[in-house]
Amino acid sequence: MPAKLKVAVLGATGYSGLELTRLLLRHPQVEKPVLLRRANDSGNGAVNLADIFPALSGNGTYPLEPLNWVSLKKKGIQLLFLATPHEVSRALLPEAVAEGFRVIDLSGAWRLKQAQHRAVYGFEDENAATAAELTEKAVYGLPELNSDKIAGATVVANPGCYATTVILALAPLLKAGLADRERGIIADSKSGVSGAGKEPTSRTHFVSVADNLSAYGVFTHRHLGEMAEQLQLTANELTFTPHLLPIPRGILSTIYVYLKRPMQATEVESCYREFYKGRRFVRVFGTPKLPEIQFSLNTNYCDLGFCLAPDGQRLVIVSCEDNLIKGAAGQAVQNMNLMHGWPEEEGLL
Amino acid sequence: MPAKLKVAVLGATGYSGLELTRLLLRHPQVEKPVLLRRANDSGNGAVNLADIFPALSGNGTYPLEPLNWVSLKKKGIQLLFLATPHEVSRALLPEAVAEGFRVIDLSGAWRLKQAQHRAVYGFEDENAATAAELTEKAVYGLPELNSDKIAGATVVANPGCYATTVILALAPLLKAGLADRERGIIADSKSGVSGAGKEPTSRTHFVSVADNLSAYGVFTHRHLGEMAEQLQLTANELTFTPHLLPIPRGILSTIYVYLKRPMQATEVESCYREFYKGRRFVRVFGTPKLPEIQFSLNTNYCDLGFCLAPDGQRLVIVSCEDNLIKGAAGQAVQNMNLMHGWPEEEGLL
Amino acid sequence: MPAKLKVAVLGATGYSGLELTRLLLRHPQVEKPVLLRRANDSGNGAVNLADIFPALSGNGTYPLEPLNWVSLKKKGIQLLFLATPHEVSRALLPEAVAEGFRVIDLSGAWRLKQAQHRAVYGFEDENAATAAELTEKAVYGLPELNSDKIAGATVVANPGCYATTVILALAPLLKAGLADRERGIIADSKSGVSGAGKEPTSRTHFVSVADNLSAYGVFTHRHLGEMAEQLQLTANELTFTPHLLPIPRGILSTIYVYLKRPMQATEVESCYREFYKGRRFVRVFGTPKLPEIQFSLNTNYCDLGFCLAPDGQRLVIVSCEDNLIKGAAGQAVQNMNLMHGWPEEEGLL
Amino acid sequence: MPAKLKVAVLGATGYSGLELTRLLLRHPQVEKPVLLRRANDSGNGAVNLADIFPALSGNGTYPLEPLNWVSLKKKGIQLLFLATPHEVSRALLPEAVAEGFRVIDLSGAWRLKQAQHRAVYGFEDENAATAAELTEKAVYGLPELNSDKIAGATVVANPGCYATTVILALAPLLKAGLADRERGIIADSKSGVSGAGKEPTSRTHFVSVADNLSAYGVFTHRHLGEMAEQLQLTANELTFTPHLLPIPRGILSTIYVYLKRPMQATEVESCYREFYKGRRFVRVFGTPKLPEIQFSLNTNYCDLGFCLAPDGQRLVIVSCEDNLIKGAAGQAVQNMNLMHGWPEEEGLL
Repeated sequence: MPAKLKVAVLGATGYSGLELTRLLLRHPQVEKPVLLRRANDSGNGAVNLADIFPALSGNGTYPLEPLNWVSLKKKGIQLLFLATPHEVSRALLPEAVAEGFRVIDLSGAWRLKQAQHRAVYGFEDENAATAAELTEKAVYGLPELNSDKIAGATVVANPGCYATTVILALAPLLKAGLADRERGIIADSKSGVSGAGKEPTSRTHFVSVADNLSAYGVFTHRHLGEMAEQLQLTANELTFTPHLLPIPRGILSTIYVYLKRPMQATEVESCYREFYKGRRFVRVFGTPKLPEIQFSLNTNYCDLGFCLAPDGQRLVIVSCEDNLIKGAAGQAVQNMNLMHGWPEEEGLL
Repeated sequence: MPAKLKVAVLGATGYSGLELTRLLLRHPQVEKPVLLRRANDSGNGAVNLADIFPALSGNGTYPLEPLNWVSLKKKGIQLLFLATPHEVSRALLPEAVAEGFRVIDLSGAWRLKQAQHRAVYGFEDENAATAAELTEKAVYGLPELNSDKIAGATVVANPGCYATTVILALAPLLKAGLADRERGIIADSKSGVSGAGKEPTSRTHFVSVADNLSAYGVFTHRHLGEMAEQLQLTANELTFTPHLLPIPRGILSTIYVYLKRPMQATEVESCYREFYKGRRFVRVFGTPKLPEIQFSLNTNYCDLGFCLAPDGQRLVIVSCEDNLIKGAAGQAVQNMNLMHGWPEEEGLL
Repeated sequence: MPAKLKVAVLGATGYSGLELTRLLLRHPQVEKPVLLRRANDSGNGAVNLADIFPALSGNGTYPLEPLNWVSLKKKGIQLLFLATPHEVSRALLPEAVAEGFRVIDLSGAWRLKQAQHRAVYGFEDENAATAAELTEKAVYGLPELNSDKIAGATVVANPGCYATTVILALAPLLKAGLADRERGIIADSKSGVSGAGKEPTSRTHFVSVADNLSAYGVFTHRHLGEMAEQLQLTANELTFTPHLLPIPRGILSTIYVYLKRPMQATEVESCYREFYKGRRFVRVFGTPKLPEIQFSLNTNYCDLGFCLAPDGQRLVIVSCEDNLIKGAAGQAVQNMNLMHGWPEEEGLL
Repeated sequence: MPAKLKVAVLGATGYSGLELTRLLLRHPQVEKPVLLRRANDSGNGAVNLADIFPALSGNGTYPLEPLNWVSLKKKGIQLLFLATPHEVSRALLPEAVAEGFRVIDLSGAWRLKQAQHRAVYGFEDENAATAAELTEKAVYGLPELNSDKIAGATVVANPGCYATTVILALAPLLKAGLADRERGIIADSKSGVSGAGKEPTSRTHFVSVADNLSAYGVFTHRHLGEMAEQLQLTANELTFTPHLLPIPRGILSTIYVYLKRPMQATEVESCYREFYKGRRFVRVFGTPKLPEIQFSLNTNYCDLGFCLAPDGQRLVIVSCEDNLIKGAAGQAVQNMNLMHGWPEEEGLL
């Protein structure tokens, strides 16, 4: 039996980082991950992740160590996961790569190739040349589209949660040239609150969210750039509206596309089934059965279903995932699997 | 002081009927309503509405009497509210009109003028001629569009909950000829569970709804016809997708329109403000502030807000209401007020 | 018609203060309340309460003015409501009284007569003598027990939300000497999140509360002192455990009492009905029907029901209320009504 | 490698049965379970469990076969799980045992030894002698108390969900003789809606449950008998009040005990730690840290924590579990592990 992979996670105290830690703990090819906290983050004195998340208790301790490159190399860490705010990832990842680590970054820091899309993040790179080089080098970690590049990547930019549902829903149609891009594509997405992060704000207060629904970030959400780049759409061709749902986790995106010509539902279904043939983590529903958020909760699936109008041209696609798994931590593990030549589903079923 | 109006409600045991009863109980121009049950509905023996809804208790009793035209006339009832399933309304309303009552019907039975739209209901009218006549005579009870006709109506067909949010959001643009109807209009609506009625089904089971979101009735929902008729859109111009939200009440509709020419946000805002000038129950939000479901809960408001894309042509409108009030019982009271020459907001603030 | 009462509210930006403002706005005997913010609270520039709570919009503006005693007197304000943190109330109320205002305080600052109970608040009074005097003078504002004293009070200490449910549930039994206090009384209470206040914390984050239930403050919660004082119980006779429910508002307390002698359910019911005869805002349910949180939401009722064990001695009482109404703002209005000789239910039905 | 165990499940279409099926599917010592439906239950034509629960799709099919003893024996089934209503279990289990199967029954049919407790179920046994014999033979499947007997059992009566939380919370104290049983023990339990089963009723309708809390079955709930028998308490010594929480799953029981003598918290904690030493699925929290429902969701843990009053005699214990796992399916798998000499946690971490 080959030695297990040694990995480290920075940011296990956030929702995605916690989920990632859980997945890594039960991954058969990976050693118990080293959990890191930022060196200057003396923190609230917590040293055990199980003190922050009592759900983890009962199986030993999960110490959070200060990040230190020398110490990580001594421990033989080969792969680093960054589950950190994007500005932290933007600053740390160049160091990590320079130190020789492969990195899977769960933030938005390295997903965008085009400066126009990156602008919404307002990055201030210390070393612009290195940042530009890494930006070019980073592979967008959507396994269903980029598995070959991911396999050999040094830096994997793990996709945004909303972006995953929208890109997977549209890629088959767009690659096949079936969608009438000029008529415009609409993605109306709804996400659970964990997508907004663990920071307590007036927006994440229970009383603000419960018994409510709200739209936000219309025309300005950061995931719009990812969708446009991966789907090769212009800004005006795609309209994206995220909404905050009164549930802890899960995303449902309802996507509206006009087809270039009237089609049969069977033809559309074939297009999807062909495209995702052999891809374990996309489940295509036979029309008119539609996925619901509950179906993919606590799994790494992205579920796709659709309805076609009687006119054969208006297509409504419904795309669901667990935003913390296929939309974050599970996809990161899927990427790790590809980077190490393991079956895509290792540790994910 | 003039005598108060005498009204009766059939269907107070449903969610809309209960809400209506509550509103009527505190309406200053109306006597305590007579609550009716269907004559052949000997029921579970319940004779007091407060036994079914203990929230009502503490203020006397609310007896449910069997429906009897003679008895109603003896009591001097002038206005009848039907909060009944559409097939019941379809059968009963002709009788009620023949007996000389004015009627506000909260079901979908009398909302549609065009046979093609009515087809989804599958009505089997006993007397086709009368039904056709009443169909023609019935006024679509959306006060912001039809207040004049409502004032003199014998039969008011109270609008559907989804339809109210969508029609009010689109009417100003369409009447002004600003929307590019041919590029297609999308209404992505999300509703609380009370919209699905009080019948326990696997779909309304708490465990099915909580932590979930699901789309349903794509291209087939019955409210589509109302929207098309009131907005004079063809079937292919409007796509409507309702979703079931894990909340008890409230609707948010996100509506996507392409404008015929690039516009300024101020211009769009003016269009809305002009159109709804003097209408108490539509609140227009200044862009880019958007309404949320919580804002209009327990009120008769329909809240409208919008965002305009940088290209000046893609418009996202958000429309919210309490589905049981502006989407049902409150609107019925608003219609009653218009029918009797009272201020539109009487009993509704 | 006599002139309407002029009142001011400090703290309308909190949940209780907002609810209070809403109730005062529709109270027939009261002028539109003057809304105050603390003088040193230059704030986020918000000057209109409707900007903070868009649900209020559509009916004029609700300016928040800095607190200024001279200005308040010029305006003829007679009654001041403090919906402020207890340390603020403790500091401000002596000033207000010295300036000649009657005050209804919604915090815990003035509820407790005994120093041992007050200790949990850790008050640091600037003028100990005045504080002691006002502590003595303040009337515990539970109208069902203290209506006479409230009528003439200068300072009314509005009860705690949990305390209201527990005291109203136990008072009839204890006053009648039926409860076996020495065997111990248990109050197991469950509250919606608005009871924890509007401050965003990790504890009020949606993801922490949803799909969860947690107990807290066992043996240490501040409302314990109120219950003990009003019910004349020793610390060891009453055990109180509050829990945080995944709902926005409402409290249900399940209370366990041993009776001194075996009784019939009818006898117990009579004891409650007698005690609350003529009290509009306590609804006694006939055993074994129990109140639920939904029944009293958005009302000023406290609902009481009970089950008696076959042995006739173990009694389980269930007590429900809306924590923001009967547990806060509604009770404050009820107290205001008593202080001005109006019917107890004025503006509250 | 020894051959895997062959098992069958009747009732996989219910919540507990589904959860059980999921656990069995990933259990390393068990073959893919045979899923059964009752022979006379021609059903809605569904033959694939994934059609009923789309969350299961993507990994082959899960056919539901009609129950047939001959066929089961041919397939080499050795262990049968009954996740059926209690009256079905009461009728079927004697047949299964007569046919030579070992059975783990998840219903309440075989848990109670004493006729007085069994009375609430109103069983009508076809063969009273066999039923009496099996009642005697059945082992109460709470592994933390009865692991030895479970190992050799033919019939395991899997405990009730509420009963598991209460018995595990009280057993250490009662076995050590520390609790003052005569002063009375209170168990105030709160459960998610899945505990009420999948049948749609007015009680499980989303609108009835959301934003609500209700107590039910006071003094009459069926789990009371289990608690009394396992803890050797008389009916008057234990008061149990279940409540319905607005969450899909999870139980929190708050339990009130008077100690015979004043104790230190450390002493109480030792009592619990000693008692559950080596038991993987009970997590004892150090006082005053209390478990919450979220901590044990989707796990087989029962979490215990407590607070001791300053008087050293009033003890509040909080006990949490996932009602579908430790309270049903997980405990059934734990029992299966014990019956086959596998590590208790096999397939459960």
